[in-house]
Amino acid sequence: MYTYEYLFDFTCSFFEKMGCSDHDARLIAEVFLAAELRGIPSHGLIRLKDYYQLWKADRINVKPNVRVVHETPSTAVVDGDGAIGMVAASRSMEIAMEKGSMVGTGWVSTRGSNHYGIAGYYAMMALKHDMIGLSMTNANPQVAPTFSVTPMMGTNPIAVAIPAGSQTPFVADFATTPIARGKLVVAEKKGEKVPFGFVQDKDGNPCNDPAILRSGGSMLTLGGDYEHGSHKGFCLSAIVDIFCAVFSGANFGPFVPPSVAYLPVLDRKVGEGTGHFFGAMRIDAFQPAEVFKAKMDEWISTFRAAKPAAGREKVIIPGDPEREKENRLRKEGIPVLPAIVKDLKELAGEMGMEFEVKE
Amino acid sequence: MYTYEYLFDFTCSFFEKMGCSDHDARLIAEVFLAAELRGIPSHGLIRLKDYYQLWKADRINVKPNVRVVHETPSTAVVDGDGAIGMVAASRSMEIAMEKGSMVGTGWVSTRGSNHYGIAGYYAMMALKHDMIGLSMTNANPQVAPTFSVTPMMGTNPIAVAIPAGSQTPFVADFATTPIARGKLVVAEKKGEKVPFGFVQDKDGNPCNDPAILRSGGSMLTLGGDYEHGSHKGFCLSAIVDIFCAVFSGANFGPFVPPSVAYLPVLDRKVGEGTGHFFGAMRIDAFQPAEVFKAKMDEWISTFRAAKPAAGREKVIIPGDPEREKENRLRKEGIPVLPAIVKDLKELAGEMGMEFEVKE
Repeated sequence: MYTYEYLFDFTCSFFEKMGCSDHDARLIAEVFLAAELRGIPSHGLIRLKDYYQLWKADRINVKPNVRVVHETPSTAVVDGDGAIGMVAASRSMEIAMEKGSMVGTGWVSTRGSNHYGIAGYYAMMALKHDMIGLSMTNANPQVAPTFSVTPMMGTNPIAVAIPAGSQTPFVADFATTPIARGKLVVAEKKGEKVPFGFVQDKDGNPCNDPAILRSGGSMLTLGGDYEHGSHKGFCLSAIVDIFCAVFSGANFGPFVPPSVAYLPVLDRKVGEGTGHFFGAMRIDAFQPAEVFKAKMDEWISTFRAAKPAAGREKVIIPGDPEREKENRLRKEGIPVLPAIVKDLKELAGEMGMEFEVKE
Repeated sequence: MYTYEYLFDFTCSFFEKMGCSDHDARLIAEVFLAAELRGIPSHGLIRLKDYYQLWKADRINVKPNVRVVHETPSTAVVDGDGAIGMVAASRSMEIAMEKGSMVGTGWVSTRGSNHYGIAGYYAMMALKHDMIGLSMTNANPQVAPTFSVTPMMGTNPIAVAIPAGSQTPFVADFATTPIARGKLVVAEKKGEKVPFGFVQDKDGNPCNDPAILRSGGSMLTLGGDYEHGSHKGFCLSAIVDIFCAVFSGANFGPFVPPSVAYLPVLDRKVGEGTGHFFGAMRIDAFQPAEVFKAKMDEWISTFRAAKPAAGREKVIIPGDPEREKENRLRKEGIPVLPAIVKDLKELAGEMGMEFEVKE
């Protein structure tokens, strides 16, 4: 187990050694640690290695000039200048909130960025300003549109955070696929099959082999198959891709660059880097803040009180499990898998740093 | 087969007889006919009877004062004053576009409305102004949140329309459930079972009986079961409900009033009527319009070119099937089912009008 502070300081120093400013390094560490705390370690420390290798390959910019290149009172396009995703994304969300504070809502589409970690982090930035936050990103292609076998889209997540009053906030953060890619990796390592509806083979046939992506298969969109509404999942994923990349001038769909250095740079690009989309809406742009919060409290308590299904404990309000996990790990410490500890120790060595091995 | 003009004129006169202004009646007829043309007759002429009965029961207001009750430069809350949904919704979308034309984007949450027909109609209003349109509505509860057996939400659709250049626009319009309620009705009439993943029984068990809603069952959210991501469908449906009702002060979740007069008015209300949410974003708030359109064309042609799955013809770009249907029906005429013709003839009689029976 590691304390939050230990892992934060390590991550921070690691990115400073890479050449990031103190401000940027702290921000990157905060987003990585948010993933660990919220129970999404697939977007946490495991990715330090990816970023290190992208840096060694000169595929990310640790001294970026993140800037607005187009704007109206309620919108902006931000060029991330090849930044580490967290740096471009945090600045973009700040701009969305600045615009929101002026005209009620702010909307920013970002290009020239990279993998930004967990979508929910940026949506949640809005909460302390009494704003609703929204965050989306496109990602490297592994998901096929309905009726196709070509991986054209990433798992393209959507996050929405909505403040409440006495209740804890509503925080939805979900991929537009039935499962995250990580679940396939876990099933494969365990030698297990996965349920039908997650992946298809190279011809588009139903498939339960978690390793199928390595032989021309692809992930399916939310809904799974056409009969169960996969075309709706495709609509969602497409909307995320268009808002993130067409709006901003980033690479869309199959042209989104890989977020790891062991995959080659793509031959063709149709824009700059990876794309994100952010929104910030003042709650008092719709209702006096206290009225909004009281109504949101009522919404949450109403849904919490829905009758549970047989064998289920209760309805889960989006954000509850992650918050509970975060509260627990802040107290008890953060577990890091032995394989990741090994990676971090090696990375530390490369950087002339230390990483302590703890039980 | 009926001509568009015949059905439009009939519907228009019908709502004028009900006391609607000429302007409102034309608008209502246009939305009803858009549903027929686009192949969504469940939201078309079949609902004239519902509106007639709501009017007889004094549950809708045909002379509403639809007005802005709260606003910022980029947002408004509109009170529909009990209007027929199409009247409140069209005006709300116009306000979103007016705000969008001033500050880049406009966002309107609407209360005190009723069933507004097809979500896509309002999103598509934005297209001719070179804007991206967004439309959502909540609806009377028949869908249970994941892990619950209580119908707490409607099929809560989301529509997004995005202009292109030489390509036809992208128009997604989908319920946040695997299927529309109408599909259950059809299966029941045919005496068929439905696939698992659409509905559950009163205890939350998997179920394939399309009539189960009448014995305490409920529809499931997009994803179907938890393993396949139904909690993501719940997130979507919840976001729609909150944007439409918490933002505006409409009834949320289980308190959304029924859209038919044969169901009683609910005992408890937590706001005014049904809620909607609309957005309008100028494409040139993100990119010069020609650049945006060229990139959107490239997005569409890239996705069209994805390799089809075995036995499938091609990837379907959202909006294509509805547009093809509309083009065909405008030429060939609109079919109306005998049962609906019978209804319309009876309704015409009530109003001192004629409705011709055609083959």
